[in-house]
Amino acid sequence: MSEPTRRRLGRPPRAENQRERIMHEAAILFARSGFDASSLNELAEEAGISKAGIYHYFKTKQDVYDAIIIKTLEGLFDHVSMTVGSVAEPQDKLLAFMTAHADFFERNYWAFRCMLVSFSGMSVPTSRHEAVVLREHYEHLLRDIIADGVRQGHFRAVDPAGTGRAVLSMLNWMARWFQPGGPKTASQVAEEYADLLFHGLRG
Amino acid sequence: MSEPTRRRLGRPPRAENQRERIMHEAAILFARSGFDASSLNELAEEAGISKAGIYHYFKTKQDVYDAIIIKTLEGLFDHVSMTVGSVAEPQDKLLAFMTAHADFFERNYWAFRCMLVSFSGMSVPTSRHEAVVLREHYEHLLRDIIADGVRQGHFRAVDPAGTGRAVLSMLNWMARWFQPGGPKTASQVAEEYADLLFHGLRG
Repeated sequence: MSEPTRRRLGRPPRAENQRERIMHEAAILFARSGFDASSLNELAEEAGISKAGIYHYFKTKQDVYDAIIIKTLEGLFDHVSMTVGSVAEPQDKLLAFMTAHADFFERNYWAFRCMLVSFSGMSVPTSRHEAVVLREHYEHLLRDIIADGVRQGHFRAVDPAGTGRAVLSMLNWMARWFQPGGPKTASQVAEEYADLLFHGLRG
Repeated sequence: MSEPTRRRLGRPPRAENQRERIMHEAAILFARSGFDASSLNELAEEAGISKAGIYHYFKTKQDVYDAIIIKTLEGLFDHVSMTVGSVAEPQDKLLAFMTAHADFFERNYWAFRCMLVSFSGMSVPTSRHEAVVLREHYEHLLRDIIADGVRQGHFRAVDPAGTGRAVLSMLNWMARWFQPGGPKTASQVAEEYADLLFHGLRG
């Protein structure tokens, strides 16, 4: 079983099991080649596993893709909501949301590239519905932080939906330009965005 | 020659010529199906033109793609820089930049989807270099506005590069979620983002 290290950016510290390893290799493959242009044969080769081994865990290529998206969205929600939950003030909560999101993105770089950049191949209805629910759930976590801040007088009367979209735009677009291992961590970039959001350009 | 209208979102008011019409149909095709999954045969069918007619203007599928990107980036720069040039104050300039960008995006919806969302197929070195230069040129237009605002004391001492990135992230991510014909124009969304940027969350 080959164990290349060069391409392991964003790999979890230790692959929990075969299924996760397949998903991780698939995320890299889909992010690099696109969903359509990737095959289970290539995936088997990259993961150092037989095609039968893949079929043991996944019925189709689509299943692998959906599993990556669902796992990433679940992990993102768990990580960010837990971080946010340990903080009291809305401004601190929003900062925690942004840095925790950026940090999770950097640690799961390929899954995010696969989810946000490569051409989406989601077409299985049940999984897709699950992903939509997870995404909405996540957006509401953010909107609630902003709405609470407005209600409690920490923020001025901005629209929580539009403001949440601005926040997620800045964070999501990182999947397009951010390179792990560069001068700043994703979390540091998020801190700068948060500073800009809190204080504005006019200070 | 078929003339479907349903799919003409973002179509220029009047196709200048055959070449532009091919590019417009190609942008829709690439944005919807992805670059790899699209063929010149499909393009010929969609554009209601023979394959020989396409070869009259473009040597390869890649040439068509590159022409779309270059034209879009050139048009964006021209439109935005002209709009910005007619305004004096940095804050008004930044607002003009953002709304002009959003407006151009909405009028060239499919080209932007093709450029920012569909899997990038750019591989011709000269064109790619041209696109990189155009993109840098555009980013500098924005950074200069921000730097001028800082120098003249209209904005606090933010980093023009990082702030410019935040602005473009918000604008670019629109290619992922914005639907023309919805409750707000892209320009109105940009105005809300500009307000958030100027005044910040704490007002």
